Amino acid sequence: TKLWGGRFEEGVTDAVERFTESISYDWQLYKYDIMGSKAHASMLAAQGLITTGDRDIILEGLDQIEKQIQDGKFEWRKDREDVHMNIEAALIEKVGEPAKKLHTARSRNDQIVTDLRLWCRDAIDKILIRIKQFQVSLVLLASKYVDLIVPGYTHLQRAQPVLLPHLLLSYVEQLERDAGRLIDCRERVNFCPLGACALAGTGLPIDRFKTAKDLKFTAPMKNSIDAVSDRDFVLEFLAANSIAAIHLSRIGEEWVLWASEEFGFLTPSDSVSTGSSIMPQKKNPDPMELVRGKSARVVGDLMTVLVLCKGLPQAYNRDLQEDKEPLFDSVKAILGMLEVCSEFAQNISFNSKRIQSSLPAGYLDATTLADYLVKKGVPFRTSHEIVGRCVALCVSKNCQLTELEMDDLKAVHPVFEADVYAYLGVENAVNKFISYGSTGSEQVKRQLEDWRVQLGINP
Amino acid sequence: TKLWGGRFEEGVTDAVERFTESISYDWQLYKYDIMGSKAHASMLAAQGLITTGDRDIILEGLDQIEKQIQDGKFEWRKDREDVHMNIEAALIEKVGEPAKKLHTARSRNDQIVTDLRLWCRDAIDKILIRIKQFQVSLVLLASKYVDLIVPGYTHLQRAQPVLLPHLLLSYVEQLERDAGRLIDCRERVNFCPLGACALAGTGLPIDRFKTAKDLKFTAPMKNSIDAVSDRDFVLEFLAANSIAAIHLSRIGEEWVLWASEEFGFLTPSDSVSTGSSIMPQKKNPDPMELVRGKSARVVGDLMTVLVLCKGLPQAYNRDLQEDKEPLFDSVKAILGMLEVCSEFAQNISFNSKRIQSSLPAGYLDATTLADYLVKKGVPFRTSHEIVGRCVALCVSKNCQLTELEMDDLKAVHPVFEADVYAYLGVENAVNKFISYGSTGSEQVKRQLEDWRVQLGINP
Amino acid sequence: TKLWGGRFEEGVTDAVERFTESISYDWQLYKYDIMGSKAHASMLAAQGLITTGDRDIILEGLDQIEKQIQDGKFEWRKDREDVHMNIEAALIEKVGEPAKKLHTARSRNDQIVTDLRLWCRDAIDKILIRIKQFQVSLVLLASKYVDLIVPGYTHLQRAQPVLLPHLLLSYVEQLERDAGRLIDCRERVNFCPLGACALAGTGLPIDRFKTAKDLKFTAPMKNSIDAVSDRDFVLEFLAANSIAAIHLSRIGEEWVLWASEEFGFLTPSDSVSTGSSIMPQKKNPDPMELVRGKSARVVGDLMTVLVLCKGLPQAYNRDLQEDKEPLFDSVKAILGMLEVCSEFAQNISFNSKRIQSSLPAGYLDATTLADYLVKKGVPFRTSHEIVGRCVALCVSKNCQLTELEMDDLKAVHPVFEADVYAYLGVENAVNKFISYGSTGSEQVKRQLEDWRVQLGINP
Amino acid sequence: TKLWGGRFEEGVTDAVERFTESISYDWQLYKYDIMGSKAHASMLAAQGLITTGDRDIILEGLDQIEKQIQDGKFEWRKDREDVHMNIEAALIEKVGEPAKKLHTARSRNDQIVTDLRLWCRDAIDKILIRIKQFQVSLVLLASKYVDLIVPGYTHLQRAQPVLLPHLLLSYVEQLERDAGRLIDCRERVNFCPLGACALAGTGLPIDRFKTAKDLKFTAPMKNSIDAVSDRDFVLEFLAANSIAAIHLSRIGEEWVLWASEEFGFLTPSDSVSTGSSIMPQKKNPDPMELVRGKSARVVGDLMTVLVLCKGLPQAYNRDLQEDKEPLFDSVKAILGMLEVCSEFAQNISFNSKRIQSSLPAGYLDATTLADYLVKKGVPFRTSHEIVGRCVALCVSKNCQLTELEMDDLKAVHPVFEADVYAYLGVENAVNKFISYGSTGSEQVKRQLEDWRVQLGINP
Repeated sequence: TKLWGGRFEEGVTDAVERFTESISYDWQLYKYDIMGSKAHASMLAAQGLITTGDRDIILEGLDQIEKQIQDGKFEWRKDREDVHMNIEAALIEKVGEPAKKLHTARSRNDQIVTDLRLWCRDAIDKILIRIKQFQVSLVLLASKYVDLIVPGYTHLQRAQPVLLPHLLLSYVEQLERDAGRLIDCRERVNFCPLGACALAGTGLPIDRFKTAKDLKFTAPMKNSIDAVSDRDFVLEFLAANSIAAIHLSRIGEEWVLWASEEFGFLTPSDSVSTGSSIMPQKKNPDPMELVRGKSARVVGDLMTVLVLCKGLPQAYNRDLQEDKEPLFDSVKAILGMLEVCSEFAQNISFNSKRIQSSLPAGYLDATTLADYLVKKGVPFRTSHEIVGRCVALCVSKNCQLTELEMDDLKAVHPVFEADVYAYLGVENAVNKFISYGSTGSEQVKRQLEDWRVQLGINP
Repeated sequence: TKLWGGRFEEGVTDAVERFTESISYDWQLYKYDIMGSKAHASMLAAQGLITTGDRDIILEGLDQIEKQIQDGKFEWRKDREDVHMNIEAALIEKVGEPAKKLHTARSRNDQIVTDLRLWCRDAIDKILIRIKQFQVSLVLLASKYVDLIVPGYTHLQRAQPVLLPHLLLSYVEQLERDAGRLIDCRERVNFCPLGACALAGTGLPIDRFKTAKDLKFTAPMKNSIDAVSDRDFVLEFLAANSIAAIHLSRIGEEWVLWASEEFGFLTPSDSVSTGSSIMPQKKNPDPMELVRGKSARVVGDLMTVLVLCKGLPQAYNRDLQEDKEPLFDSVKAILGMLEVCSEFAQNISFNSKRIQSSLPAGYLDATTLADYLVKKGVPFRTSHEIVGRCVALCVSKNCQLTELEMDDLKAVHPVFEADVYAYLGVENAVNKFISYGSTGSEQVKRQLEDWRVQLGINP
Repeated sequence: TKLWGGRFEEGVTDAVERFTESISYDWQLYKYDIMGSKAHASMLAAQGLITTGDRDIILEGLDQIEKQIQDGKFEWRKDREDVHMNIEAALIEKVGEPAKKLHTARSRNDQIVTDLRLWCRDAIDKILIRIKQFQVSLVLLASKYVDLIVPGYTHLQRAQPVLLPHLLLSYVEQLERDAGRLIDCRERVNFCPLGACALAGTGLPIDRFKTAKDLKFTAPMKNSIDAVSDRDFVLEFLAANSIAAIHLSRIGEEWVLWASEEFGFLTPSDSVSTGSSIMPQKKNPDPMELVRGKSARVVGDLMTVLVLCKGLPQAYNRDLQEDKEPLFDSVKAILGMLEVCSEFAQNISFNSKRIQSSLPAGYLDATTLADYLVKKGVPFRTSHEIVGRCVALCVSKNCQLTELEMDDLKAVHPVFEADVYAYLGVENAVNKFISYGSTGSEQVKRQLEDWRVQLGINP
Repeated sequence: TKLWGGRFEEGVTDAVERFTESISYDWQLYKYDIMGSKAHASMLAAQGLITTGDRDIILEGLDQIEKQIQDGKFEWRKDREDVHMNIEAALIEKVGEPAKKLHTARSRNDQIVTDLRLWCRDAIDKILIRIKQFQVSLVLLASKYVDLIVPGYTHLQRAQPVLLPHLLLSYVEQLERDAGRLIDCRERVNFCPLGACALAGTGLPIDRFKTAKDLKFTAPMKNSIDAVSDRDFVLEFLAANSIAAIHLSRIGEEWVLWASEEFGFLTPSDSVSTGSSIMPQKKNPDPMELVRGKSARVVGDLMTVLVLCKGLPQAYNRDLQEDKEPLFDSVKAILGMLEVCSEFAQNISFNSKRIQSSLPAGYLDATTLADYLVKKGVPFRTSHEIVGRCVALCVSKNCQLTELEMDDLKAVHPVFEADVYAYLGVENAVNKFISYGSTGSEQVKRQLEDWRVQLGINP
């Protein structure tokens, strides 16, 4: 019979038990559940609500249970529904009467959300580490190719030449904002609902500031109804993960493209590739395809909890039980994605020669030519038209801008002079960039150095 | 080493292996994978591509493996990545050379999608049964309360009186359309991709019509690239599940409302309720809250696969591996939701007395009064205004429409006559409904009877 | 004052009026609203509920209003909230008393859902035409390049050679299933809710079969509560659109890739490209990027209505007003996407020379070589390993499979004979495919012919 | 012809123009586009890239255009595609040559994202004001009912008595976190992409710090590729809105419930209610239904942009044009929802009598009784069982806990003494709560006071 079963005359049906149980996944919270129970018991004793003797018995019992769980020797029982009831019932079996006092001045409603906030806090910290690791991998990769010019794309059309480190650092920037969102989320997560009890607080003289402090929360939550009924911290966490996942999906897409025969810019090592069961020559960048693919589940998890919470009245509703699996799934996915991205970054090489030989295609220096004209005093819109005509000429002659003769150029517009050739060709083009944050060598070198310092990478 | 590892010099890293494996969930396809392999082997033999001896060895080996799996004695290995490789490698270990011929003229690309279509077909059939069971439960419940009048709501405001069976049958109608969508989906699922191989088909003389027929597919798919690259059947299935889940969430909401103290219309039996760890008097309709809640994951699963497939070029991409977990999750959820809804329907009682005593509130007969005026020749818009004034009068007198004196009515409008009282009061109001599909007793009796016949419920 | 305002003492605030109005978008339903009102009035007259004189006045008035609207001379008023009230109030102003009888035996609840079903039916028909147009464009495009071999991809890695028409027809197949889903949806849409009134039907002797028939519905809906409260037909429609949109996003992705400098397989004409404000040489395949991009809003629209309907109790709730904008948006998007895809298909050319010259890369004939070995009696798994070694040899020699000497091949495995060269090289490889649905020329020719017949394209 | 059309030989088709235009919605950015252009022109002049004369002409022209737009006299042209091109072209028409210099050292890629960030910044500020207004409305409402006890619910079952202000303040807390998320988002939004140009920066000596400062941005963005390609700030904004919308949907649900006949706790004034076209007595809380309903589109908008950005390679892709409509829609919806919630809160009255008379139902004092036993030294789990038996006794006697005789209580357990009656009954129960954040009067009074101070509400 259930611990809450006092007035119940019959048990639930098998189907209902199977449908409503959560122990098959919420056992993962055990560490936090025990942590919370220990802080709670200590507070109860400090407030004189239980004796210190009872407290010690409870703490000792909980330690044993934690060890049993870690050793895989704890039996999780579905008829005990969830992680709280499993642990509490086991504690009662183990230590008897004192354990029956543990649930004083608390409810599963505040207990679960305390567990969950503690879990989220740790999960965020783990993700932050992985983000930093991936940033470090990207910066180290960038450091290997400081001078490599690659095509920069818009609309997946070649647009302008950029330094590879510049491109890689654009991802580092995005990851930094992903980290920022998680840090902000952690701030809001880190308030303690314990003591809100079922929804209204309690008439017993508990000390919520003590439990909050012991559990390293910033402070207790200020409103007990809010404390047990809201899951906005889960939503914020899942949203932060989703945005990060979208960033990773874009890197996944880019690296899958670059690993194709057609681009041919990048080769993953065997250690991060997989093969085909029927096409022996294949070397697929599967990890990055799966990074792209797994972004979908992270988004789906967010959607699940948004739909879940929509339209629920205050306070706790059983629906909220369903917040855990998507949360666990999202965190597992994002951790795996970051880890694999990082490994991939450590195990690819860029095919400098092939890239270089491909650079003449696409008129990557056209914009630099427009800048040249502006410097000569031609209004930009006019410059733009002139360069357009130059490109059209190249297309008709099947040549590059740098291959146009001065006569050709003069025929397009008299403003061209010999110094124009210092602006043409991909290398010249890159060297001309000087604006803050641009792909110019000096700018990129400075950015790279800044990131090395910020990430603690030794020279 | 991997079966595809011919030219690979080093294995993948642990992180990549962990990240890319699918065996931890796709083992659930084993039955269909083996079914497909058996049909494939038989076809290869029929076409002379392997000997009948080899075929028999393969079939026998596959049977043994299936039994091992069913008995929990099969070791699933992560280093073998997926269900296909696990079974094929085990078969090679078991029967040697002949097993190496099994992968002739197929690829994991067509194999997985064959497995998945077979799995979906069975899953749809299971859901269809559960839908019917729930419909039967609803019809039986309706049959218990043929004469019970309940308030009908719009905007959650009392609007008109309806017969409870009429309300319950509205859900039966919706479930029937849910079934219809799944049946249509099953039609489109039931085409055979096997033989599409990696993406282009094969140069070996296989007979795709034979495998299709043996596996009870309608026909082989007509285009090999389409066959391996599309997952629209998964999306359609998940969408059908999502729409059904939304329907169930609405029933969940309604029954949770009706089980509240404030409505008090419905009491679940103990066998489908749960209690509270701190509030001993509580008897919560948790199963229906979770039905409502689990609708969220079904929607999230759809979202996951939509995001997954977005923007993938032809043909197979590794991303597609991620279609399985949401699919499995959606089906598990919807099956559980339907089962529990059905059990709940079998284990609730409607509180007829309380409902009856509450009926006078809300002016449920107001619309019938407007109909009365229309029958007297008053244009509807005018009738509507007159009834509005009558209601306003009731509000000021704190009485029901049926309690208004004839003088009161005449004062509002001279058209009222004594026969008006046959239209007032909830029972009169219900009895007046006569239109097809309305809540009038005759109409509802006929609908109920139709459903009993259609669902094969004996009188 | 509102038509429903009988007992109301004050109007709503400006903010509420602005927030709750729907006329700014539901005016688009006017044609269907008038159609429904005309059928309703005719039925009321046929049943003797209004005179034929009144009917004629109503019909004439509605015709005039429709004309006014079409001519842009109708004033839509926000204080009249929605399309129904705007038209009814205008009718009352225009023809007086008879118009006040029009709302007899109906409610805005059944009226709006009748309008919406009629609108959906037409919208589906429009989409079906656009799907067919795009299919025709694809088939005509395929017919222009019957012999063009292109790389077939898995994991965006070159896998096997395929005929371009084979690839294009894979999209035609997918579009055909998209059409199938819409046709099935149309079946379920096409039932008539009119006469369900607010939620319970009516006591007036209406003939719902007549209105259903006049409006070309299959039949009246059987349950009045279901009729007014469900929006599953909207969800099904949005889901069908979403799946189609995902298909289109994949074509968008593929064509954007193929139009890149790196692939260089495809050139759009100027009439379907756009340029850059700063890079004059750019010719971007923007329409296909936007096709890919707009798939997002189609998915978002589905998500909106799923979230909207989740957890709503029976019957009508005001929330449902929010179903229209996402529905209209989804249909507008999908119609535009299909139209532009079709135009793009008519305005691209494939760069046969560049494609051909790129074909040797990627060992596209490796699988065909494995088939060769199978034909020689080598078990597939062994063949696979042998081909893997051959490819490794090519990689080390920097050559193609077809360039391997017989001695080289023999050194890998003695089974190779001179006839192997008939299997190597991309053209040989394609020619060897013979299985049903494969990329072999005969197969593709037959598929192309089948589609020409099915789509009514003259030879 | 397009401004970018230099080398284009023919215009795009009508369908493509219609499909790709954005002016029909991005005109809403005009204020920010002009603001950005003015800052850009000033910087160009400060850097000597244009003359101060040209600058003044440009600034004056832009002012005139802004005025024209505000006065509704500006003609937006679809053939000019977007807001940037419309304004630039109009400027050229107006002031000639100098205007052609304005696009120096910028691109539509950095221009649009600058506009969008400025727009978001303002939109966030508007939402923050609306959040505060709603908080104030809630606090004022709470202040009107400081002593009103209402049932507190879990699982929509009555659980414990709470003070109405306690419940209302739970929403105030949630709104405060919503504001916090928006403030954090604003921090990340507020970096300046201008000067990133197409993607690589520029070779012209611009001063990005100056434009950033003039536009009140914190700083220029550090990486030009990141600056033009990322939309994570849109996603974060939409996610913050979605979480707020979910909160509002919950209030909507609760107030719709409370306004029902069955709850009857709350009556909206006529100014925030609407009626029915057929049921004259209805007074529907439509604004709150629509608040609940509109939460769906806010979630859908988030989903749209997540799907949109998924899998896009660097840098700008045309898909990104589709970020604007969901962003605008989300902001419009959330502003409307907050405004209407606030008005609703100002226009409802709680039916104190009806609520009070309903309080005895539901054993709301059961938990307090358990606390009593704990204080008497009974372990909580045992207390819980004892109270369960007391409740069972009440159910069998059809009475309240407070109506149990001392003999009855003693029969359940000898620990009960006369002082127990000070714990029974709803008012006693509420008075007993003392824990921080609980529903005890002192606690709630303090919270209310804190909020009045924080929100600047005068006593």
